[in-house]
This record gives sequence, C-alpha cells and structure tokens, in this order.
Amino acid sequence: MLYLVGLGLADETDITIKGLEVVKRAERVYLEAYTSILLVDKEKLEAFYGRSVIVADRELVEIGSDEILQGANDADIAFLVVGDPFGATTHIDLVLRARELGINIKTIPNASIMSAIGCAGLQLYNFGQTVSMVFFTETWKPSSYYDRIKENVSIGLHTLVLLDIKVKEQSLENLLKGRKIYEPPRYMTVAQCAAQMLNTEDERNEGVYGPDSLAIGAARVGAPDQKLVAGTLKELTEVDMGHPLHSLILLGKRTHELEKDFIREFAVDGATFDASWSKWYQTTS
Amino acid sequence: MLYLVGLGLADETDITIKGLEVVKRAERVYLEAYTSILLVDKEKLEAFYGRSVIVADRELVEIGSDEILQGANDADIAFLVVGDPFGATTHIDLVLRARELGINIKTIPNASIMSAIGCAGLQLYNFGQTVSMVFFTETWKPSSYYDRIKENVSIGLHTLVLLDIKVKEQSLENLLKGRKIYEPPRYMTVAQCAAQMLNTEDERNEGVYGPDSLAIGAARVGAPDQKLVAGTLKELTEVDMGHPLHSLILLGKRTHELEKDFIREFAVDGATFDASWSKWYQTTS
Repeated sequence: MLYLVGLGLADETDITIKGLEVVKRAERVYLEAYTSILLVDKEKLEAFYGRSVIVADRELVEIGSDEILQGANDADIAFLVVGDPFGATTHIDLVLRARELGINIKTIPNASIMSAIGCAGLQLYNFGQTVSMVFFTETWKPSSYYDRIKENVSIGLHTLVLLDIKVKEQSLENLLKGRKIYEPPRYMTVAQCAAQMLNTEDERNEGVYGPDSLAIGAARVGAPDQKLVAGTLKELTEVDMGHPLHSLILLGKRTHELEKDFIREFAVDGATFDASWSKWYQTTS
Repeated sequence: MLYLVGLGLADETDITIKGLEVVKRAERVYLEAYTSILLVDKEKLEAFYGRSVIVADRELVEIGSDEILQGANDADIAFLVVGDPFGATTHIDLVLRARELGINIKTIPNASIMSAIGCAGLQLYNFGQTVSMVFFTETWKPSSYYDRIKENVSIGLHTLVLLDIKVKEQSLENLLKGRKIYEPPRYMTVAQCAAQMLNTEDERNEGVYGPDSLAIGAARVGAPDQKLVAGTLKELTEVDMGHPLHSLILLGKRTHELEKDFIREFAVDGATFDASWSKWYQTTS
C-alpha cells in the first residue's frame, strides 16, 4: 500500500493521529521536500516519529518514483507531503505510476494552505482560482497569473496567491557544468510578491488592480507565530512578515461587512484601509 | 484562550496531535454539530478523547455564544469543528465576539473538503468558487448557485458543490407551535444534487451545463470507504454513493490529459465518459 500522508502546515504535531500510525508502522517513509516545507527540520520529525525519514527531492519523485514504490505491493510505504497530499501540488504522476504497478493507494488528508487561508476571515466560497507567483528575473517575468487574477476580479472574487520557493536549485553555471552544487533555499516574501504584482500591472496596464488595492499578507499559517497583515499592495511592498512561508490574498469585491471588521483589525494603517475600502470594495450586510 | 480545533473529515483519528493535546487539557470542549458531521458519533469521540464533549447546536453557537466563551479569559475552551475551523463555514461571529470580550483565539487547522476534494485528481488551481446546494422544495428552488457555476464555467473552471445537510430541523408545524421536536437528519446525495442541477438548467435554460456534462461524485472523502464516481450528470442522477457525506464536482474545461486518465478510472461507463469528454472538454497536455 502507498500511503500519501498530509503533514499539515507548521510543525511535527500537525500530523493526524491516523497519519502518525501509518508513519510508525510503514516499511519506508519519504518526505517530499521541494514543493513546500514545514517550519521544523527533518531531524525534529524523525525524533517525533521515532524513526528515520528519507528526503525525496524533485529528482527522486519525478525520475526515481519506482524506487519509492519498490515493494509497495506487499509492504506499506508512506509518502509524506506538507499540507494536504492533493493540495497545491497533486502528486498525480506518482499515483498514476502506482496504479500501473497495481499498488493500492490511500490518502490521509490534512490542512492545506488552500483551506487554512480561511483564517484570514474571508469566506472560502468567495475565492476564485488560486494562482502561483514565481520569482521574477531580469529577463523572465511571466504574467499568466495576471490573466487568472483578472478573471477572478471581474466576478468579484478573492485570489489566493501562493509564493515561490526555491529549494535545492542549481545556478545556471553549475547546471551546465553538471555540478551538483545547490544554491541556498529562497522563499518569496509577501513584500516581494506585492512588488511583482505591481510590476506586472505597470507592464500590462489593464487596471486589474493597483497600488491602493487591498490585500492580506499571511505568514506561517497554523503556527504559533502566525501573522496576518492587511493593507494596500503598496503598503505590503514594505511589510516585513518574518520567516517563511508567506502567502497573499488579493481582495475581491464580494465581501461582507463582518469580514471587513475582521480584517481591519490587522490593517497596517486603519486610515488607508478605510479609504481604499470605501473607494473600491462594496459590502453586503 | 478559545481554541478552534479542526477535526478533519472522517473519524476520531483525523484530529491532529496538536488538536488532541488541546482537547485533553481544555476546561470545556464543544462540538459544533450542525454545519457538518463526522462519520462517527459523539460517544466515540468522547471515548477516544477520554472526556465529555458538549454538543453545540446552531442555537447555542448563534445565540448562546457567551455561554461557550464563559471563563475563556482565564481557562482554555475548545470549540471543535468538523473539517477546518475556517473551511466551508467560518465561525466568524463567534471569533468576533471573543475578540470583543478580549479573549485570545488560536486556530488548529485540519483537512477541509475544500482542499481534500483534490483526491479526485483535479488540480485545485483549476477550481473556481465553491457553491452550496440546498434541498429544493415544491415551492423553493433557489438558483443563485447556477449563476456562480455559470461564472466558473465561462472561464473553464471546475465547481465544487457542497451538499445540504439538515440536522435538528423542526417541521413548520412544530416550529409554529413552538414544539422542540426535531425531524430525522437528512443528507443530500450526489444523485439528488445532480437531479436538482438538471432541474435548474431546465428552468433557466442558459446552457451552462446539460445532461451529458461530466461531473464527479465524491462520498466520505478521507474515510476508508471513500468513493469517487465520474459520469455525466444524467448518469449521476442514478448513482448510489452510499452513506453521507457527499459532494459533487462539475468539471470545467481546463483539464489536463493526466487528469482525464485519473478520473476515467472511476467512470460509471467508459464509453459515455469518452463521448462526453471529446464533445465538451478540451485538454492541454
């Protein structure tokens, strides 16, 4: 049996009782470690589980999936995924490969940022499609996300923006020379995301949002030091949300007065918040 | 401190380690029991937690919130919510009331149907806004959900439809006579939902979807007997998915060939699936 086990969002105690039972009895335990991270390291997980964990990087999952699945017809293999196993990243290739090999699959769900973001106080019913923001470079500033946000904005919906992480990436030079030397990990901040969004709006100039559009920055959702900040995109370009992981919500117009009360509590500046709110956001009460 | 603790979706072992620690040490433990249900009863939870649990019905949460919050300035009160505390239903009134009273609040996230539905193999990125389907009556067939689906369909997105549950409802007669006699609980099935959707399409006739549109029925997501069925809406009106809870996904056009492979596996009928797929759904590969 292949078990896909969600770990939740913050630390080693966010695994479910059901998930922990699987981890304790599985033959081998893999930790998917390239699409998201917990806020604790592998050693802490191993101490908590009382057993060793094999880190599965992108190469292993995408090319070495048969290695992961080896023996799973007879024994239990646990594949641990930060968040929910079918949350932001679906490991559908791995599952399809397991199916081909006649391996049974079970999923143990857990919190995903895509639902836990509800902690910001906005109804999940009013979120449109989620988008991803990658790190821009001098020459590569993909803006397809902007089209998705435009669709959401046009029908009044909020957009959850998931921010890029770069783990175990090689520099172009090292990649070309075949040297397995990896850059230090990078995690996009709310401030970087807000700046990139404004950069794209400047380029595309379709008025989907602007410097005084309201957004919420979220950091370390589910952790004891979870932090939420509401403000204009311009304000958020200067906000320091602390350690990763960060996410951002661009506010849609379909909001409720109660939601306004809720998010105003963590506004960078109540006055700019109110000004932007009355200018751009209708409320139904 | 008020702890909002997510219970996940299926049974008593879906709580997280962190959540269970809170439940074990809290002064009082409430179980929100009217917007969703676990697949096990209160007694099973109490046996697992080793303590008693107070069932919080709608009346208590909406009118008696001060009773729930009593003493929470000094002691820990746990408010258990099936799924994620801020998932399909945000208990924002309770949280705002706690804030007014100067009570600190912590949330312990867990799986929500809004992310766990990813187990159907469709990327969550391609879901639009979620809608709710209520039980139609002879005289009341609200179709505002249809407008929401229309928006999603127009931009190629999937729609998750959450199905009505009626717990502790009074008949009109008992309500008028002030008799606290409650009807047996009712849980909408995938078949009922599909039939109501086709009923609305007949009424509204805007061609948002039709009898041969593809959808996925999901039952008991996260439980050992989780069931997924793909088929046309017409086929789904006749499908028996077993015990509650059920949900439905109306397929959008923004699908990937890999996703097709994944869902075809649980098609009611491979031939009608293929016919509808090639007629209505583009795939990007």
